[in-house]
Amino acid sequence: MKQKLKLKIIKIGGNVINDKGALTSFLSDFSKVSGPKILVHGGGRRASEMISELGLKPKMVNGRRVTDESTLEIVTMVYAGLLNKNITAQLQKNNCNAIGLSGADGNTILAHKRIVKDVDYGFAGDVDKVSADIIKVLVNNDLTPVFCAITHDKNGQLLNTNADTIAAELAKGMSKYYEVELVYCFEKLGVLADVDNDATLIEKIDFISLSFLKKENIISQGMLPKIDNCFDALQSGVARVIIGKPEVISDERLKHTTLVL
Amino acid sequence: MKQKLKLKIIKIGGNVINDKGALTSFLSDFSKVSGPKILVHGGGRRASEMISELGLKPKMVNGRRVTDESTLEIVTMVYAGLLNKNITAQLQKNNCNAIGLSGADGNTILAHKRIVKDVDYGFAGDVDKVSADIIKVLVNNDLTPVFCAITHDKNGQLLNTNADTIAAELAKGMSKYYEVELVYCFEKLGVLADVDNDATLIEKIDFISLSFLKKENIISQGMLPKIDNCFDALQSGVARVIIGKPEVISDERLKHTTLVL
Repeated sequence: MKQKLKLKIIKIGGNVINDKGALTSFLSDFSKVSGPKILVHGGGRRASEMISELGLKPKMVNGRRVTDESTLEIVTMVYAGLLNKNITAQLQKNNCNAIGLSGADGNTILAHKRIVKDVDYGFAGDVDKVSADIIKVLVNNDLTPVFCAITHDKNGQLLNTNADTIAAELAKGMSKYYEVELVYCFEKLGVLADVDNDATLIEKIDFISLSFLKKENIISQGMLPKIDNCFDALQSGVARVIIGKPEVISDERLKHTTLVL
Repeated sequence: MKQKLKLKIIKIGGNVINDKGALTSFLSDFSKVSGPKILVHGGGRRASEMISELGLKPKMVNGRRVTDESTLEIVTMVYAGLLNKNITAQLQKNNCNAIGLSGADGNTILAHKRIVKDVDYGFAGDVDKVSADIIKVLVNNDLTPVFCAITHDKNGQLLNTNADTIAAELAKGMSKYYEVELVYCFEKLGVLADVDNDATLIEKIDFISLSFLKKENIISQGMLPKIDNCFDALQSGVARVIIGKPEVISDERLKHTTLVL
């Protein structure tokens, strides 16, 4: 079998977006990552600020935004407009040929409005399908897709979608064509047994150690669903998942957590 | 010489964007246009509304927006976010594989900040170069680029750019590879000798009749620079320019103005 080309999918969250210096530094590092790559970015504080500036109130349930019609307008403006285009322009400055996308663009990420169970999250999207073929065309032409956390339902409706989920779904979809490494950048060194102590970093988690870590309650409740999503991605063909600080993308010696099957 | 494939570049302005019914109807017609095509959209009222909602004042000089830093943030949000992604999602609903772009995306439209002469227009962009190669890759893969009126300077700066100009520059750039027809949709039947009388439509303007129309002051002062831009596009290789109502894209019997060399 012909060996697959490598592809890195890197997700940055609000903490990087909120800090202009951190974002500039990250985008400089990202531009230098060699080979095919995709960036996924979260929203950051700007959307909540904009909601307040317009006299509305951000509404969260279980740590997730409830997206009513006005909120959807605002997150579409801030994520797909302000953030996505400024990130793209900065990458272009760094000679990285970025192309900013939402899931509606090229029908790259198809989703459906989350079905109401206990909570009505409004215009929140759950991903159904990634169009790996069209993303591959972009990547093959030396473009670097930059995805914001907006998808669509192919019925004219835009949907607000969790950026972690978008990164995982893109990684799963692109595994059809590439050996995908999925990198989640956040403020910690990686998965920590004690979140306040870097010395408790768990450097590697595989399927066997995961069950042990779960049984012994070593992984925090907040981290557990994220880890489960990572293993779901691994079982769907993603080669490896890395969780660490943004600097990990340019400095492999920096400690981090690697997840493999 | 091998005959060039045809490409239609269609520009819609604020008057279509402002009216939800008119926009839906136009996007339905646009989706049915056969063959390779590109959509360019203006801004509409929403940006000015958003500027007012945020307690700022829209500032215009000679009919053009003065783009200070806050205004640039807002037009980036409204044009590249809200409008561009909603138009893209609606086209996707109509089975038109749209991909929404600013000039920063794929470095498709490079511009520079307008040089200050009498008026400082702030972050207004004048176009330097269209990357026809990358747009051709998209079009060849059955994607329909949808451009908003935001460009960049490849130095990290986004720029607010006139949508008519973007359409003309795209048409000129794409003429390298395609036989381009450039269609400007607006609220009138076309170029009228008396703007209030449809019966005075000038159905065809070529280079010879243009000099006559100018000498006799038949074309209004407001329309003249537009016409000059159209002839500039024709002289740069665009096959023909059509000016007419939005319905002209689906109904060729509808009267309109055709400009040819």
